[in-house]
Amino acid sequence: MDRGISVARRTIIGTGIAALAGGALLPGLGLAGALRGTGDMGVVVERATGSVLIVDQSERAAIGRVEGLGDLSHASVVFSPDERFAYVFGRDGGLTKVDILTQGIAGRVMQAGNSIGGAISDDGTLVAVSNYEPGGVRVFDAATLEMVADIPAEWAGGLSKTIGLVDAPGRRFVFTLWDAGETWIADFSGGNTPEITKIAGIGDHPYDALITADGRHYIAGLFGEDGLTALDLWQSAPVPRRILAGYGRGEEKLPVYKMPHLEGWALAGDRFVLPAVGHHEVLWVDARSLEEVGRTAVHGQPVFAVARPDGRQVWVNFAHPLNDTVQVLDTLSGEVLKTLKPGPAVLHMEFTPRGNEVWVSVRDAGRIDVYDTHSFAKLAEIPAQSPSGIFFTARAHRTGL
Amino acid sequence: MDRGISVARRTIIGTGIAALAGGALLPGLGLAGALRGTGDMGVVVERATGSVLIVDQSERAAIGRVEGLGDLSHASVVFSPDERFAYVFGRDGGLTKVDILTQGIAGRVMQAGNSIGGAISDDGTLVAVSNYEPGGVRVFDAATLEMVADIPAEWAGGLSKTIGLVDAPGRRFVFTLWDAGETWIADFSGGNTPEITKIAGIGDHPYDALITADGRHYIAGLFGEDGLTALDLWQSAPVPRRILAGYGRGEEKLPVYKMPHLEGWALAGDRFVLPAVGHHEVLWVDARSLEEVGRTAVHGQPVFAVARPDGRQVWVNFAHPLNDTVQVLDTLSGEVLKTLKPGPAVLHMEFTPRGNEVWVSVRDAGRIDVYDTHSFAKLAEIPAQSPSGIFFTARAHRTGL
Repeated sequence: MDRGISVARRTIIGTGIAALAGGALLPGLGLAGALRGTGDMGVVVERATGSVLIVDQSERAAIGRVEGLGDLSHASVVFSPDERFAYVFGRDGGLTKVDILTQGIAGRVMQAGNSIGGAISDDGTLVAVSNYEPGGVRVFDAATLEMVADIPAEWAGGLSKTIGLVDAPGRRFVFTLWDAGETWIADFSGGNTPEITKIAGIGDHPYDALITADGRHYIAGLFGEDGLTALDLWQSAPVPRRILAGYGRGEEKLPVYKMPHLEGWALAGDRFVLPAVGHHEVLWVDARSLEEVGRTAVHGQPVFAVARPDGRQVWVNFAHPLNDTVQVLDTLSGEVLKTLKPGPAVLHMEFTPRGNEVWVSVRDAGRIDVYDTHSFAKLAEIPAQSPSGIFFTARAHRTGL
Repeated sequence: MDRGISVARRTIIGTGIAALAGGALLPGLGLAGALRGTGDMGVVVERATGSVLIVDQSERAAIGRVEGLGDLSHASVVFSPDERFAYVFGRDGGLTKVDILTQGIAGRVMQAGNSIGGAISDDGTLVAVSNYEPGGVRVFDAATLEMVADIPAEWAGGLSKTIGLVDAPGRRFVFTLWDAGETWIADFSGGNTPEITKIAGIGDHPYDALITADGRHYIAGLFGEDGLTALDLWQSAPVPRRILAGYGRGEEKLPVYKMPHLEGWALAGDRFVLPAVGHHEVLWVDARSLEEVGRTAVHGQPVFAVARPDGRQVWVNFAHPLNDTVQVLDTLSGEVLKTLKPGPAVLHMEFTPRGNEVWVSVRDAGRIDVYDTHSFAKLAEIPAQSPSGIFFTARAHRTGL
């Protein structure tokens, strides 16, 4: 399921943190409450300590830390439209609203027992959480965190775990039932009682899904069979369509160290890029036909393949044990342009909104590295406590992140 | 030239402003300096009074006004990466840095005698202005507004007027010489002394240009001949390529009430949409081949054809005398989905970043109207003094706006 399944479990290492206490390493600490624009801020998840760092892209620095967020394994984050509040989705069902200006917790609810992923409606008024236990989606008022809708994922077998929750234009949320193989669209355009559309036939055990940046295509990866399933949400009655029949673990059952993330295919020029499953390859897919048009051999099993915002490059990180490396692919040639070795356990990469820089979390070095994406020069190292996901506020303005 | 050429001059009407004085109509006035996120803010140009309104998308309201910005005919605006500062480019050569948090002027220089348009580098450190007099581009430190580079547009005939100035990835600016028919790329990646690449053969009197949102294609419109010229900036040595041979005024010399804006073609699905010249049509252009693939008959001569951020709709406004109307096109069918009549002199449309709402300036009604883009319901009317351009802070995160 979404980031939950690792065929070979990663070792979680808790060392390397000792040097990070103290304000001296957080130069801006103490600036909480200062008047400032929020367009160049962000948060970094510190899983081991249940905290998030508040970061400033322009300063290339951490400027504060907010603690007490619970279990942040596989945590993800969305932002309010004003780019002031970060909604942090914890694995333990905790939903925390962090005020990045005052550097405090503006609200927190334990909304379920076990959850994975969340989304915010296009108008910024609703925050939705996808739950394993109890299976379904719960939707909250973004201002108060009061629950406004509970959508149990009922099917013949009881309640299904839900995965692949995304926001879609028109105050809609889209998510998929792992057990039932169905995708549901919850439409809140008429108010806070959603109209639910259920689409069956998605496939055997969809484990993750994404929506393309234009909100048009919703694509689910399947754990129980090869191939992916696409829905065209621009159609009034979307019909499941199988694509990329060869995509998956295949007959040979190669060792898969981690099912790759499907959180948003990189659109590079007119091709999507996605990580292969179990192979040391990325796949290039025609953005119109959704057919495979090429492959590039890379360093290891890819986890994320992320396009620079202009699509001119694709940055790839890898599964354990080859996860000390990042490769940069040239979009036009498809070739590896650069191989970087940031350090042990590169978990995530986040571009500044216009792509001139990229932040890379190097978990087991206790560090975030900032690179110039044109010269590949390392511009900064920022201490962090076992950093994993990096989330910049510009995500507020985009669909499906 | 960029917004400068109107074959039939628009009448500028200065009435309808009397009712707008007073804080009662600016509900948030007095909130200058309040702690707040800046992701949902913006400015609206009030040309007749040389002022800008500070607006709040979430409140659907004006929250302040900054005056003393000089001649704002055809003014445009870019934003700092933190979404706090608006750089306002006036027609009189004035460059004003407005602090939208304190609602004051943070800096102002008269950098030339007659200018048109500006841009900000992808790293947010350089602001460039395109000048008619003296012809060329001047580049300023975004923090201090000190000039860091002066690029006179020298050619065989002296100094050329410059048009179509945009920012491109890699700390580059691209602009075109109206008199010389050349496009220049000024590359600041090595520091503040730019490396200049000059590309000849753009065509006869390029009057405006755009860069696609991915920073790849730079496309110039020609006043002296039909067709457009495209440069692929992803190539190491871009070569001018003529596209859309039928695009322009044509042999018949139809009355053209206003040359349409080329400020960014609307990417809707896999097609660009652009306003026809002199005809009551918009053109659909294949995003890959840059060939025309269809036309839609519309209400008048289109001025702006703007895609909703998800590309599902295209909104079009029109030249005088049919400028009381907005039409909404369905991207899949190409058909007119809705015709709205906001009122006299609809000059500009700006979508909220995720496209759920659109703000429309109705100059001669002294009003900005806010519409829901899904239901087409009018959600708010905001008084303004002869409003023209609307610019939301999310532009900070995008290329070429």
